[in-house]
Amino acid sequence: MFRTTIIVRFGDLDPAGIAFYPNLVNYVQESFEDFCAGHVGRPYPDLYREGIGFPTVKLEIEFLSPVRYGDHVDVDVAVEHVGRSSVRIRYEASVQGRPVFRARNTSVVVDMSTFRPMPVPAWLRERLLSA
Amino acid sequence: MFRTTIIVRFGDLDPAGIAFYPNLVNYVQESFEDFCAGHVGRPYPDLYREGIGFPTVKLEIEFLSPVRYGDHVDVDVAVEHVGRSSVRIRYEASVQGRPVFRARNTSVVVDMSTFRPMPVPAWLRERLLSA
Amino acid sequence: MFRTTIIVRFGDLDPAGIAFYPNLVNYVQESFEDFCAGHVGRPYPDLYREGIGFPTVKLEIEFLSPVRYGDHVDVDVAVEHVGRSSVRIRYEASVQGRPVFRARNTSVVVDMSTFRPMPVPAWLRERLLSA
Amino acid sequence: MFRTTIIVRFGDLDPAGIAFYPNLVNYVQESFEDFCAGHVGRPYPDLYREGIGFPTVKLEIEFLSPVRYGDHVDVDVAVEHVGRSSVRIRYEASVQGRPVFRARNTSVVVDMSTFRPMPVPAWLRERLLSA
Repeated sequence: MFRTTIIVRFGDLDPAGIAFYPNLVNYVQESFEDFCAGHVGRPYPDLYREGIGFPTVKLEIEFLSPVRYGDHVDVDVAVEHVGRSSVRIRYEASVQGRPVFRARNTSVVVDMSTFRPMPVPAWLRERLLSA
Repeated sequence: MFRTTIIVRFGDLDPAGIAFYPNLVNYVQESFEDFCAGHVGRPYPDLYREGIGFPTVKLEIEFLSPVRYGDHVDVDVAVEHVGRSSVRIRYEASVQGRPVFRARNTSVVVDMSTFRPMPVPAWLRERLLSA
Repeated sequence: MFRTTIIVRFGDLDPAGIAFYPNLVNYVQESFEDFCAGHVGRPYPDLYREGIGFPTVKLEIEFLSPVRYGDHVDVDVAVEHVGRSSVRIRYEASVQGRPVFRARNTSVVVDMSTFRPMPVPAWLRERLLSA
Repeated sequence: MFRTTIIVRFGDLDPAGIAFYPNLVNYVQESFEDFCAGHVGRPYPDLYREGIGFPTVKLEIEFLSPVRYGDHVDVDVAVEHVGRSSVRIRYEASVQGRPVFRARNTSVVVDMSTFRPMPVPAWLRERLLSA
């Protein structure tokens, strides 16, 4: 498992003073970026420049408790499944131990030059499965 | 059923030239706003000022096909279920008839002064169930 | 002169219930997109696909009055200057006649294949100067 | 002077693979938030909850060089002027020493309960002027 922390910014808030949910969906994406750099060992910008993309095909997310300005949101990232050319990842987010959202994201691994699915490279599969 | 159309903006795009998925999640929210004004008969800003909020507690969304710059995204909004203080709505989005995403959003109806669930008012239930 | 209207969305608001200023900067960009489609006669997506980009090099913007949820923001777009490979445009925004922001944006016209400045094409110069 | 560093996220990029300029305007805001926590000694969320707001009334920003995915953007924050109820701050941003944008932001200090200008509190003036 991998943990990253995202600090809630003013620009993420809605008029009720809590994080607007599409912005929390972006936290899922940012956690994936941090996971690539911190666990996979290849920053997502590098993967992207090397021509590997991870477009999301399915997202399920539950919002459990409000996220407020200045909160440090701890996001635990766990790979649930690696298919031939897909990856399913679980994100569990909490603030000081209080669960705030949990999400499951299914991405297809694509060759960015053709935007078509490609087999997950062996080195990447190995890194993903170790999380 | 209610249909609204959202035009893809430059600011919604990612480096692959397609709409970034958290921005498509925001289209779900914008479709709900249009649904309030166009079908419920009470603009969401007015509902919000009257103290009724609809925080999302669960979202499931599938991305079926890329959404590109300038696309007119038609979003069909259909209410699936109205509970005591919750609403589940289905969003089916297409571009020139090609499905691009479908989502199911469950919201709790809250009294914004306390941020606690409130029973769906009768007039609102009637309007929701007619969609 | 060209006028477009942008409706303030929930996602544009800050905790004070008014539009967050980086989101109003995005309204400048959206007004430019509408100007291309509505006055220049070539939608910005098409220009962009034909390889012409307009990266902003300078922006000055004054925020005169709060912009609220549901406001219809009328933005008047006027071309102030067309240089060899630059364009300076003025944006005056109001809500029901009340000025809310005014901005001046200077863009360079670039060939997107090289990301280097290119002379403003004659047809485009003519259309810009007629605004 | 105060320096903070912001890492460019995927969601900040445009189809040319560079940061979209309204998102760079948001970096100005985020730098101000970091400045409050790191230099003023009072996190912006706390100031905000205590009823002090800093709505921007004027922003001038020049974009000098493209900002790319994964860049670490160093932002130097320097207070230029503290008026009776206003603050003017300079932001100079660079990537590995290469200047990427510079901005000047003028904010009014407001009492959030009335949304009207208030005199800059003495303790805050002292902290601002020491930057």
